Amino acid sequence: MTENVNPGSLIVGMPALLVIDVQGDITTPRHDAARDFPMPRYEEYMQRVPALIAAARSCEVPIIYMQEVHHPSMIDFGRELDGFERVHCLENSPGTAIVPEVDRRPTDYWVRKRRYSSFFDTDLDILLRGLGARTLLMVGGFTDVCVHYAFADAHQRDYVCRVVEDCVAGSSYEAHDAALAAMEYLQHGCRCVRDELIAALRDRAATIASG
Amino acid sequence: MTENVNPGSLIVGMPALLVIDVQGDITTPRHDAARDFPMPRYEEYMQRVPALIAAARSCEVPIIYMQEVHHPSMIDFGRELDGFERVHCLENSPGTAIVPEVDRRPTDYWVRKRRYSSFFDTDLDILLRGLGARTLLMVGGFTDVCVHYAFADAHQRDYVCRVVEDCVAGSSYEAHDAALAAMEYLQHGCRCVRDELIAALRDRAATIASG
Amino acid sequence: MTENVNPGSLIVGMPALLVIDVQGDITTPRHDAARDFPMPRYEEYMQRVPALIAAARSCEVPIIYMQEVHHPSMIDFGRELDGFERVHCLENSPGTAIVPEVDRRPTDYWVRKRRYSSFFDTDLDILLRGLGARTLLMVGGFTDVCVHYAFADAHQRDYVCRVVEDCVAGSSYEAHDAALAAMEYLQHGCRCVRDELIAALRDRAATIASG
Amino acid sequence: MTENVNPGSLIVGMPALLVIDVQGDITTPRHDAARDFPMPRYEEYMQRVPALIAAARSCEVPIIYMQEVHHPSMIDFGRELDGFERVHCLENSPGTAIVPEVDRRPTDYWVRKRRYSSFFDTDLDILLRGLGARTLLMVGGFTDVCVHYAFADAHQRDYVCRVVEDCVAGSSYEAHDAALAAMEYLQHGCRCVRDELIAALRDRAATIASG
Repeated sequence: MTENVNPGSLIVGMPALLVIDVQGDITTPRHDAARDFPMPRYEEYMQRVPALIAAARSCEVPIIYMQEVHHPSMIDFGRELDGFERVHCLENSPGTAIVPEVDRRPTDYWVRKRRYSSFFDTDLDILLRGLGARTLLMVGGFTDVCVHYAFADAHQRDYVCRVVEDCVAGSSYEAHDAALAAMEYLQHGCRCVRDELIAALRDRAATIASG
Repeated sequence: MTENVNPGSLIVGMPALLVIDVQGDITTPRHDAARDFPMPRYEEYMQRVPALIAAARSCEVPIIYMQEVHHPSMIDFGRELDGFERVHCLENSPGTAIVPEVDRRPTDYWVRKRRYSSFFDTDLDILLRGLGARTLLMVGGFTDVCVHYAFADAHQRDYVCRVVEDCVAGSSYEAHDAALAAMEYLQHGCRCVRDELIAALRDRAATIASG
Repeated sequence: MTENVNPGSLIVGMPALLVIDVQGDITTPRHDAARDFPMPRYEEYMQRVPALIAAARSCEVPIIYMQEVHHPSMIDFGRELDGFERVHCLENSPGTAIVPEVDRRPTDYWVRKRRYSSFFDTDLDILLRGLGARTLLMVGGFTDVCVHYAFADAHQRDYVCRVVEDCVAGSSYEAHDAALAAMEYLQHGCRCVRDELIAALRDRAATIASG
Repeated sequence: MTENVNPGSLIVGMPALLVIDVQGDITTPRHDAARDFPMPRYEEYMQRVPALIAAARSCEVPIIYMQEVHHPSMIDFGRELDGFERVHCLENSPGTAIVPEVDRRPTDYWVRKRRYSSFFDTDLDILLRGLGARTLLMVGGFTDVCVHYAFADAHQRDYVCRVVEDCVAGSSYEAHDAALAAMEYLQHGCRCVRDELIAALRDRAATIASG
């Protein structure tokens, strides 16, 4: 049943943190000054992610890492090379690894994907049902590609969706902003910033503990 | 197998025309001057659709009408009322019907959907496989919601996607433009205008006829 | 979250009645004496269905009719004609209609499908989530095709599944029995008979009413 | 488009070999004499698989290993423990590994799954589309669970399906036989034996080589 969501309520039911494609390297500026790709200061947005993961973990919120991977034969790229993106995320390439800064633990979850949406032909929904998750907290990149399409699919699957706008970055500033606006179109109040979310997670944990 | 697409080639393999949510009324201006919703002159964009359908039909291109529907009990809205949209497309409401101007024929195809994406829990993919379709030509609305998410899903399912930019309209101008840019990010050369597409369809039909 | 199921508990959480492919005619013996197809007395099994529907309705259990349909062009048959089945369920054929004996109401739900499984490229899961259904009560035919594959998919989607074994009938006795055994392999205690289920539905309704 | 299949034709278009859940140990008899589980001489059926893989590889047929896995937290078991099966295929358990006898190569494909069907929330279909595969050759176990449900899903997705009946084994003899009969119901001529298939693969390779 689709719960009614109290406007202003950041977390509805059980939350889960979805860390989307935080792969490769978040220590080095990636910006190509010649063409606004990805958006400037991309790495700063990603560098905010590890502290959110740590806070979520301390509040017993499940952490799920999404990782885009492609077979070295490139057989599974589909139409992904018809547009702006070049060959990416080959399974045997070091840059495909989830970044070490996120400090992945054996109790965390890890879901590989071959397409942009976290739900497309993956077992993410099985995992979320098992966890009883109702609210998905999304961070990572690109805001306008993998995050946007994960959000749209989660929305269509009846999840409450939240995007942490200082922990997602896009293929360009303009595309990042447009994608956030598109998410807000789908679910009002879905946009939040990291420190507000950490406070809400701690409030929730305290309420449960005093329960 | 994913065909290589010749850049500049508008139609790859068998095309199909996807008419997305052209429901209700395309004769009356729908624009709410107070808030840019949907985008101004929405109806003019939709009024260009019937001639494209007629041209596609004369070229023996299959026509597929997508129709968003919801049960009168509203049980199947999921999270669709959490955002900008109000109650819409109830099965027993006259405004839910596909517009009469499109002149639907028994040989056309008609797919109902409960969510924004044309592929989400529908039989569209079964139909497209049956037709042997490789290139999807998309028209209708909203550019930034049902068209964008159909495009993203079609892209992820390896279809060549084309959006007819003077036959789609959005929830706002800004959202319409951003969605078209997002589609171009996925597949270069996906944007076309109606008359250019009609010419390409006729060229293709002539080539086949001269066989 | 996957509930623990108390063995012997017929209904877990909210139930829904899934009436699978009760189409055409349930008044006429259908058995082809020459080849055991479908199983003998098929129509007797189907004739038990309307009373179960009435009982479920009186207990406020949602009723969902699944209907297999194919486009008259036959474009959507896929591989369904590679095996034992002949052309079936064309949209414009009278035999494709849901049987009148089931007394379908506007408050009931109706889901069309192009393949054997009730979940395959249909909006059934959207509906079940909207209803908050946890236990699916299955009747109809064929036990070994549309019922079995609906059961397997429901099982994989974490629903508690019950099959009413005197209200399902198969392509042959042997196939019917084997399919019921396969369902029991997946979920112990899933097999029940109609009158036992009606009693359980009434007990549940009385408990809720006295609530 | 759904090809017409010449009855008697074992391989239609591009084949792929699907090795389903050949995990753990195929050298040791697994039969529990007290209860016919799994079927007697299970290991003998599995021991025929490596030679088929070698033959397929020499004929340049893609090899795809399906592996059932569950997270050590057991969060993703869904309803799999409601029936006959006990806790199985934990990711950190040695018995979950694909058996070494199959001699997996980097050019092979490997798809993890959380449910019985090879297609359920996995990226198998993406891979098969990338390969251009039309005919799926299935081996492994159990005939009546993971093989049967993979076959049913592949059938519904329009693949030509072949099951190598001396290279699949079931939860019991009876269930194995019933599942093979159910597959034959879906696609006539789908049952073959290993040596017949190897001969067909070699004929096909020779025809291709001779241009």
